Amino acid sequence: VPLRAQLEQELRSAIRAGQLRPGNEVPSSRVLAQDLGLSRGLVVEAYEQLLAEGYLTARRGSATTVAAHRPHVERSGPVETAPAAPPRYDFRPGVPDVSMFPRRAWVSSVRRVVNSADSAAFAYPDVRGPAAIRNALSEYLNRVRGTVARADRVLTCNGFTQGFRLVCQVLRERGVKSVAVEDPAHRAHHQSVRDAGLKTLPIAVDVRGLVVEQLKRTDAEAVLLTPAHQFPTGAVLAPERRAALLEWAAARRAWVVEDDYDAEYRYDREPIGSLQGVAPERVVYIGTASKTLAPALRLAWMVLPMELVAAVTQAKRQDDLGSPSLQQLAFADFLERGELDRHLRKMRLHYQRRRDALIAALRAHLPRLRVSGIAAGLHLMLELDAGADEKAIIAAAAAQSVGVYAVGAYRARAKRGPGLILGYGATSEATIAEGIKRLGSALAGPRA
Amino acid sequence: VPLRAQLEQELRSAIRAGQLRPGNEVPSSRVLAQDLGLSRGLVVEAYEQLLAEGYLTARRGSATTVAAHRPHVERSGPVETAPAAPPRYDFRPGVPDVSMFPRRAWVSSVRRVVNSADSAAFAYPDVRGPAAIRNALSEYLNRVRGTVARADRVLTCNGFTQGFRLVCQVLRERGVKSVAVEDPAHRAHHQSVRDAGLKTLPIAVDVRGLVVEQLKRTDAEAVLLTPAHQFPTGAVLAPERRAALLEWAAARRAWVVEDDYDAEYRYDREPIGSLQGVAPERVVYIGTASKTLAPALRLAWMVLPMELVAAVTQAKRQDDLGSPSLQQLAFADFLERGELDRHLRKMRLHYQRRRDALIAALRAHLPRLRVSGIAAGLHLMLELDAGADEKAIIAAAAAQSVGVYAVGAYRARAKRGPGLILGYGATSEATIAEGIKRLGSALAGPRA
Repeated sequence: VPLRAQLEQELRSAIRAGQLRPGNEVPSSRVLAQDLGLSRGLVVEAYEQLLAEGYLTARRGSATTVAAHRPHVERSGPVETAPAAPPRYDFRPGVPDVSMFPRRAWVSSVRRVVNSADSAAFAYPDVRGPAAIRNALSEYLNRVRGTVARADRVLTCNGFTQGFRLVCQVLRERGVKSVAVEDPAHRAHHQSVRDAGLKTLPIAVDVRGLVVEQLKRTDAEAVLLTPAHQFPTGAVLAPERRAALLEWAAARRAWVVEDDYDAEYRYDREPIGSLQGVAPERVVYIGTASKTLAPALRLAWMVLPMELVAAVTQAKRQDDLGSPSLQQLAFADFLERGELDRHLRKMRLHYQRRRDALIAALRAHLPRLRVSGIAAGLHLMLELDAGADEKAIIAAAAAQSVGVYAVGAYRARAKRGPGLILGYGATSEATIAEGIKRLGSALAGPRA
Repeated sequence: VPLRAQLEQELRSAIRAGQLRPGNEVPSSRVLAQDLGLSRGLVVEAYEQLLAEGYLTARRGSATTVAAHRPHVERSGPVETAPAAPPRYDFRPGVPDVSMFPRRAWVSSVRRVVNSADSAAFAYPDVRGPAAIRNALSEYLNRVRGTVARADRVLTCNGFTQGFRLVCQVLRERGVKSVAVEDPAHRAHHQSVRDAGLKTLPIAVDVRGLVVEQLKRTDAEAVLLTPAHQFPTGAVLAPERRAALLEWAAARRAWVVEDDYDAEYRYDREPIGSLQGVAPERVVYIGTASKTLAPALRLAWMVLPMELVAAVTQAKRQDDLGSPSLQQLAFADFLERGELDRHLRKMRLHYQRRRDALIAALRAHLPRLRVSGIAAGLHLMLELDAGADEKAIIAAAAAQSVGVYAVGAYRARAKRGPGLILGYGATSEATIAEGIKRLGSALAGPRA
């Protein structure tokens, strides 16, 4: 650091700390230069810098003084609420196994793209995402998720959250007043709906997914659902419900927002194709790399009905001018080279082993309780007896260092059907076995 | 692609295209298998998949039929408004020279970070950004921009736009009703203020920057400004204005949003330190990597008054759960290794040469017109005669393949002081020389 910058930094600190007080004269440049053994020119320059920045004031014909702002009182930060250490046997849902992130292949894709891209790749991106990722995603989703995607109806965004928020905003602009949301569901989704100035209508979910008959009795003009693997119950939307839902949407000219968050993980059979493929002009499809690759990328995508493309693009532009594009180019390369397919083949087996270990452990230690939602995804639901007290059970489990999560926490309405959500994405088989053993003994208490 | 998936894809396409019509029976699995020379089991599985996806319907005791949804009519996309080819001699402001992106150093940082990071780096990030970038940014900004930053008051975001939008939202929640904005300024800033439900108050800018006396006469409770290099006039906020502004903020308990977008490019002297350093509890500092490294990263950061940290963090969480974190870790590494400093030393000289070439060309071909805003940044302003018609001049320049931009397009109020904004960030010295020569002959017309 040059001498002058050092001197400036010290003067700034002294003023901020109140050692040089507002209104006080500073020593003349001659005196200070002599005191510090610096050249006078250097001190003059430093004073000029601090005058320009507003730390000092000079009035014609009088000495230079410390400016009259109140000295800064360094406040202590907000007490960092250090995140509580996760329980030793943690079944938190919605978390993939990030230790399996394909580091080498990802670095390769980044290197290839950064080294070979045209300069324009480093400039402001197309607000919808670079053409390369919109093309690669269309090909991938049409092949793997049965969508009817095309680059001109794809738009990338920062996670599901931003995508859904932008869609709500656009629906509101188009006169929509209320959005139906599955009950139970992530609370944050209700919040996104309300933040857009819309009403949320909770609709029950049973083992066949969203109860479409109930949806029909509302005046909802849009619905958000997770047909491939309901969060958190794990139900897969049944064929007749899918048909009824799309009939409702066509008849009402309503919008269906399909949250396809972990559809690639289907264990007993091929994943069910997306709703979007059946009704591309009524369904907003939202997918994400958070469960298939890494939440850290915050990378998600929408496949939009043509009618909404322009408005959602405009909303995205006003929101943030587009998502970071270099990593999107890397992801496009990663897709095109089949790296995501390779990774998913590996992860499907990996998660299936964990799921099987979890089911086996539940049979061994909690044989009386029904398990549901096991066909797909990274979590399942353990159904509790009708009168069971979720909170007491969770507390008893926590006392054994076991983290389980109440379905009740996701419910908007009456707390029917108590249950525990058990995620197995980020939990090793050994941890699963011991964790469920402990859960078994914990449940022996509150249920007794 | 497996045979079964191929068959499914063909059936889906035929149904979507209306070749298989709603209500029609599909051939029995036996017949279709025979026709196609496939095993019957394979056809049964494909039918089951399409039943599950809602393309087919089966009722007990009757044949399988095509589901009764309306077949999808493939619409053509919106006519892609192909962006008009930029003029050959383009002086668009706000665009850095992305051809100088330090590809090798960036890939190096990505590789180092992805290979060495703990697994947690791939999980959901701290919503404020990873600690590594908040620490590295604090160190950098305190050293280079004279801020008083600390990791616990830093929050990363997607470009200036998102940061400012979140701040507006939080100010609104705190009861703020109107935000003063420089006039002229980016129109998008006014939009962000209005989108948050706030009123914008345009405040004049002169050669000494924002006219603080005019601000004082309003009831604004917050102000957005670009003190280091006003956009678009290029003015640097004068010392007495800085002092007056901070006095106003202290007296009113008003908020100052400091847009420090290209402050690192100061040519005649050391850059003026940020306002935040003088009044960290009243100033929201927003900086970005868009001008110093690459707009494609969409990476920006805020240094917040302690009083706003929790609320802005919460707003960011609801917005998108945090910005992509892998590239933030790469940027932290890039900062810590001094790569940004190295890049900026190089770019400062690079841009200074372009600026000097532009000033020289203007002296040669348009000697009568005053040039302002040359001390810093990536653009300057060419002041036109009081009655000049910006639009006619721009059209005349465009006819010569020269792209120049009207200051009037950035004005919220009366169109005083016509001028042209000339960006030189992304324009080579040869292009500058020829472009200004052509501008000179174009201006000979409309001004005559």
